[in-house]
Amino acid sequence: MKQQPLEGVTVLDFGQVYNGPYCGFLLSQAGARVVKIESLLGETLRPKSKKDASFYPFNNLNSNKECIAVDLKHSSGKEIVQALVKEVDVVLQNFAPGTLEKFELGASDLLNINPRLIYATGTGYGSREGPYKDFLGMDITLQAISGAMSVTGEENGPPLKTAAAYIDFLAGVHLYAGIVTALLSRNAIGKGSVVDISMQDCAFPTLSTAIGSFYSIGKELPRAGSRHPAKAISPYNVYKAKDGYVAIICIREGHWRRMCDAMKKPELKEDPRFSKVRFRAKNIDLVDKIVTDWTSSLERKEIFRIAQEYGVICAPVQTIPETIEDQHMLKRGSLEKKKLDANEELSFFKTPIRFENLEPPELRLARQLGQDTDAVLKEFLNLQEPDLTLLREEGVIL
Amino acid sequence: MKQQPLEGVTVLDFGQVYNGPYCGFLLSQAGARVVKIESLLGETLRPKSKKDASFYPFNNLNSNKECIAVDLKHSSGKEIVQALVKEVDVVLQNFAPGTLEKFELGASDLLNINPRLIYATGTGYGSREGPYKDFLGMDITLQAISGAMSVTGEENGPPLKTAAAYIDFLAGVHLYAGIVTALLSRNAIGKGSVVDISMQDCAFPTLSTAIGSFYSIGKELPRAGSRHPAKAISPYNVYKAKDGYVAIICIREGHWRRMCDAMKKPELKEDPRFSKVRFRAKNIDLVDKIVTDWTSSLERKEIFRIAQEYGVICAPVQTIPETIEDQHMLKRGSLEKKKLDANEELSFFKTPIRFENLEPPELRLARQLGQDTDAVLKEFLNLQEPDLTLLREEGVIL
Repeated sequence: MKQQPLEGVTVLDFGQVYNGPYCGFLLSQAGARVVKIESLLGETLRPKSKKDASFYPFNNLNSNKECIAVDLKHSSGKEIVQALVKEVDVVLQNFAPGTLEKFELGASDLLNINPRLIYATGTGYGSREGPYKDFLGMDITLQAISGAMSVTGEENGPPLKTAAAYIDFLAGVHLYAGIVTALLSRNAIGKGSVVDISMQDCAFPTLSTAIGSFYSIGKELPRAGSRHPAKAISPYNVYKAKDGYVAIICIREGHWRRMCDAMKKPELKEDPRFSKVRFRAKNIDLVDKIVTDWTSSLERKEIFRIAQEYGVICAPVQTIPETIEDQHMLKRGSLEKKKLDANEELSFFKTPIRFENLEPPELRLARQLGQDTDAVLKEFLNLQEPDLTLLREEGVIL
Repeated sequence: MKQQPLEGVTVLDFGQVYNGPYCGFLLSQAGARVVKIESLLGETLRPKSKKDASFYPFNNLNSNKECIAVDLKHSSGKEIVQALVKEVDVVLQNFAPGTLEKFELGASDLLNINPRLIYATGTGYGSREGPYKDFLGMDITLQAISGAMSVTGEENGPPLKTAAAYIDFLAGVHLYAGIVTALLSRNAIGKGSVVDISMQDCAFPTLSTAIGSFYSIGKELPRAGSRHPAKAISPYNVYKAKDGYVAIICIREGHWRRMCDAMKKPELKEDPRFSKVRFRAKNIDLVDKIVTDWTSSLERKEIFRIAQEYGVICAPVQTIPETIEDQHMLKRGSLEKKKLDANEELSFFKTPIRFENLEPPELRLARQLGQDTDAVLKEFLNLQEPDLTLLREEGVIL
């Protein structure tokens, strides 16, 4: 690939927190021009100071976006958006259902203004049909309703969420995928379309193992910690190492045989208690004990190296301070160090959508609230200084 | 949208288990013609019987694909693939790194044969650079190395995976997104490209809250159960109900005030112990107790209804048997009931990439191993019955 694939595409990004902004981030990293539009207060995630916990994700997700601030509650603000919509290819938003419709900036309003527009929404439950279409949702509540929490946790403990906000990001990349698909369709038929992504829809397929096990066994299974949901595969767990934990999985017979060699216990390969996956499942406690005897004598790095050398699927449980220094991701260019000042730097993630022989645009800290309002309104709408001054005085823009 | 957006696009899908097959599933649900190619033994997930736990996910993920079986280890098998590659737009695969290269079917081999080809690979760590590029990975080991496990689990328990295979699916939709982006780029510049998706890259952004909290506080935090990773927001947890659990989150002051009204305790709005997010964080145990006092007196459905009525972000923790009967997803058309026989039916998920006024193709059970070999090889390569008989006798195809 010789040029950024989305060069020439212009996006108006009403994204908030993770879902919408991640979509805008992916668009921007693929070469689109992304204008982030916020209220005069700034979006939910915009940090008040460098020490806020939201400083990192906000700056990473909104790097390379031009930031404008417009008050939609003001009729002139609404008109500015309507005028901008004529000039862009994509509008994306993940407000609560019905929010933009209140300002006459819903899908049908904007497609009337620009029939070639891609209008893309991300919501908890999809915005177009069904009894929950107007309901609010966030990552944690979608982890609940999707069924994910019910199968996550210790065997005798309560249902548990994972701290990875995975449904937000999963929905964000589906939103990106829908937009790019709609751009391709527009090339063919010349018309825009409405993309409608539901976090609940996106989460459902990730439960495939649990659902398949339920259909197979015919009853609800207890939570299984880090083991296979139906305890049907072993080794498959998180095992104690000298300096933390490692995860190991043997999904095929060959993996188990190589695992025996890696542990320097080749005699186990012939042991009838472990020679087939269903026998190992029956003796799961003993298998886990054998593996733990081995892993607990070594450091994570050593286990990782030996396992991969033998062709066993394994990885260390990395802590957050370790993962942001991950040598592989840094080397691969998936992380980029950004200096904040002499003492501090951040590991910014780049787009996971990578092409051979093409570097994504370099990342930079996010722009301040309204930093690009004047430049964007001048360029897109041909507004002049006096217009901008008036709008600012009237509290329409920042 | 009037026609399926990927109509006319043809795909050769070497996907296995979840990651690659989910990508092929999304392509097929967007109207592409997807030919699934397997070894003569079938791919890892193909079930041996209707009662296998893999029956459900295999059939759902591979519905609407034509299934052919070719032995790549046989030189005639390799030639068949090379000939097919001339006729398709996309090859996708998620084998262990280096597998297809061994058969001279790697990216550069196939782009030499067809310069307009999109060649897309999904692997644990990306297949092109960095110290782990040849390493094996699966969902559980990527949950480990990404940092997700280290922040998931009970406060005093070990690191934990979630039973949702979210990194597999997250990487699968990034793979789809990369392919569609590359198709758009090919429209512009006339050339194919290589898409390189790393599960590790895809998982990293989902840790944004944990990473942001780490950068803000400057030290590693203990696991926090289902609470906010830095316990900075409350209510934010899973709460006991009469008949299970519910998740509730109040990220803005307005949410808390509405929560007080929902609980019929308006006086709490003025209580200085709870009037700001930082006070509620300080009194997190008390806030969780107050919320539990309310939730434990009601059934999940009632809490969900009241919360949404008051504008509080809440959802029931659904079990697996409940999620496959989710009335909203069925009504929205995100789930489709498939009859297996008189007594049994499955809830198949449809694509989460939804467009207004466009139904995705209806789903059907997956085809048998090799069921479409003859038809595909006749149509694409103009092979005749005697050719196919000979290839079958030689063990090249099934």
